Amino acid sequence: MAARKRRAANTSAKRRKGGPRVKRTRSGTRTGRRFDASAGPLGGITVVDLTRILSGPYCTMMLCDLGARVIKVERPGSGDDARAIGPFTAAGSAYFASVNRGKESVALDLKRAADRRAFERLVDSADVLVENFRPGTMERLGYGWKRARARWPRLVYVSVSGFGDSGPLRERPAYDMVVQAMGGIMSITGEAGGKPTRVGTSIGDIAAGMFAASATLAALHQRHLTGKGARVDVAMLDSQVALLENAIARYATSGQIPGPIGARHPSITPFGAFETRRGQLVIASGHDALFRKLCDVLGTPALASDARFATNESRCQNEPALRAALEAALASADCDAWLARLEAAEIPCAPVQNVAEVLAHPQVRARNMALSIDAPEYAGLLVAGNPMKISTMRERKSVKAPPKLGEHRERSSRERR
Amino acid sequence: MAARKRRAANTSAKRRKGGPRVKRTRSGTRTGRRFDASAGPLGGITVVDLTRILSGPYCTMMLCDLGARVIKVERPGSGDDARAIGPFTAAGSAYFASVNRGKESVALDLKRAADRRAFERLVDSADVLVENFRPGTMERLGYGWKRARARWPRLVYVSVSGFGDSGPLRERPAYDMVVQAMGGIMSITGEAGGKPTRVGTSIGDIAAGMFAASATLAALHQRHLTGKGARVDVAMLDSQVALLENAIARYATSGQIPGPIGARHPSITPFGAFETRRGQLVIASGHDALFRKLCDVLGTPALASDARFATNESRCQNEPALRAALEAALASADCDAWLARLEAAEIPCAPVQNVAEVLAHPQVRARNMALSIDAPEYAGLLVAGNPMKISTMRERKSVKAPPKLGEHRERSSRERR
Repeated sequence: MAARKRRAANTSAKRRKGGPRVKRTRSGTRTGRRFDASAGPLGGITVVDLTRILSGPYCTMMLCDLGARVIKVERPGSGDDARAIGPFTAAGSAYFASVNRGKESVALDLKRAADRRAFERLVDSADVLVENFRPGTMERLGYGWKRARARWPRLVYVSVSGFGDSGPLRERPAYDMVVQAMGGIMSITGEAGGKPTRVGTSIGDIAAGMFAASATLAALHQRHLTGKGARVDVAMLDSQVALLENAIARYATSGQIPGPIGARHPSITPFGAFETRRGQLVIASGHDALFRKLCDVLGTPALASDARFATNESRCQNEPALRAALEAALASADCDAWLARLEAAEIPCAPVQNVAEVLAHPQVRARNMALSIDAPEYAGLLVAGNPMKISTMRERKSVKAPPKLGEHRERSSRERR
Repeated sequence: MAARKRRAANTSAKRRKGGPRVKRTRSGTRTGRRFDASAGPLGGITVVDLTRILSGPYCTMMLCDLGARVIKVERPGSGDDARAIGPFTAAGSAYFASVNRGKESVALDLKRAADRRAFERLVDSADVLVENFRPGTMERLGYGWKRARARWPRLVYVSVSGFGDSGPLRERPAYDMVVQAMGGIMSITGEAGGKPTRVGTSIGDIAAGMFAASATLAALHQRHLTGKGARVDVAMLDSQVALLENAIARYATSGQIPGPIGARHPSITPFGAFETRRGQLVIASGHDALFRKLCDVLGTPALASDARFATNESRCQNEPALRAALEAALASADCDAWLARLEAAEIPCAPVQNVAEVLAHPQVRARNMALSIDAPEYAGLLVAGNPMKISTMRERKSVKAPPKLGEHRERSSRERR
């Protein structure tokens, strides 16, 4: 595991105390000698990260959480646009921190010759490059996939964009909100009969980042076998379509266009949020046996033998009548009392928790999913932990700080003069 | 690439015409000789798939789309519960088809000795095992991780569950709706000031399947270096927390609990859906320069110099006033006219599309994201394509049919007698 170290790309740069050096990493096809198991399954993998805001940074956060070394290459001066997006702590953007914790940062202007040489030396030592510019930008910078492949045949070259690197909308810019709207998820989210509603989190960005991470890892797997890199091309719009799931099947089989239906499942009943005497709860009674058990617990066994509710299909057709009957029964007690009875009967149920309740929940805490940042200037901030638990990876109880702009390499000598 | 073939696990079984045999696959640490590049980056990888309904099947669908051979092991008689969930086509459940297209199926009762032997022979030849039973079930079947590791040290053993394999709720059953409610995403989705709303797709299942796919691929990468498998433990609740993104940062920095805010971004303004004279459109004007351009296109340059709207932060604080001003301008023309003008100015914008519009969209078609199934009995059905485009992988224009229950292996001889 003796990692050969090299001087940082810009050999004249002074390094800050404790700042890591840029070391050459060549994840082996035939050998694991550079593999650093203590970091996680991606120990020894280096990612050069040109991404900004959210979709690309979410992808590289996942790679970082899996043990890769991620080096953000940011524009000198302002860096990743997310640094300017709130909410803010005294140390900087909490928004930026939440998806960039644990990464490194170098500031490079890819239009300057000295910085380009530094960038190229970084990529010489890297396994993966991730970018989320608009298609065409990397070509204009001279780092399009064709050139990159010629110079770095082992590189996994990952592009995340709004619409992908083909098709009529290829060069169109996009943001989360754009692909949530165009991709259909808004049209099926919202109150029954109400307006299309945005998913409350940036699922347009995040889903693309997640698919890009899987594609990157598949390409790394393949590289072990072929010795060659690959180009990954993930589009935010494609990723939204991939999330639509049974809405596509419902439309294709019935011709009916699905709309928002509030807080229930479209084709499993009863499966949704219900009012009690005080407070809402969720009941997810996915099949007939559970439905019969539910009727017992609610003290309404007659519902279980009612022909209108005999099968999931008939329950879906008669959802309003079933909901009324269930809520009539639920009106006799409060949410917490019902949750206790339903849990005792092993009927899947849940409180509808707000963000504060989620972060304080014993299960969330036990799974290390609400983590603090290892740096006094971020005291009080919480970020989501890593949901990818792997037995070969040490579970983290906190995360490393996000990088200050350019923290891991002094600016190029030219810029310093 | 000469794949050594073996007889199916149950050697007495007759094979259907054209049905694939179970072949031994040993993806090499040091060699790629069994790697089948034509299938995709996971060509040569075999996945034994014990999963049901959605979270696990979504994970194995992703692995299948990347080229792995996925063999579903289903309960004889009824199989995966999703086979009984609508909507239905003449050939069976479209819901089942949408996430199981391209997989194989064998029917095995893991409580019968002969079927257990057949199952074990399948795993002997596999690289990955995926299950989404409740924690404890695999142990009761005698196939818990500890035993599996002893017998199959190279196996990547993947568990997807509601709450994960640790913590106080470890053994609690869960469904999509349960983790959407407990994980906080419902509390930030919905109309402004309205009720918590379910995300219109089963993001509770799908997110867990996606994280499980990435974790599986990371473990496969690691296996090339160590020769050893690993246990992956992904929880649906953890996965929901990982999606909360800036809602956590907002709560942690302000102490204010985020609620539903309709169809706009919580910390970027203007970034949301707006009413025009006829129809809604989305404008995603993420930074100051775009905001100024937007004001020009709307013919309201005074807004750009209004102190209330000078920065993103001030625009967020004054969102209602800004929305009113923008909608007053937008009221002079219809949605389509505004989209044309905004697009010409390269301001990110979009129509709010329904599912029918999504599936017919030229970009979605050009990217092969709405695919038909290669089987006459599924004529007319569409399913989502693969959003993970990789240059080394042939792009599919249609998908293979989902398997009939037990199609790829005759029932065990004992059952046939």
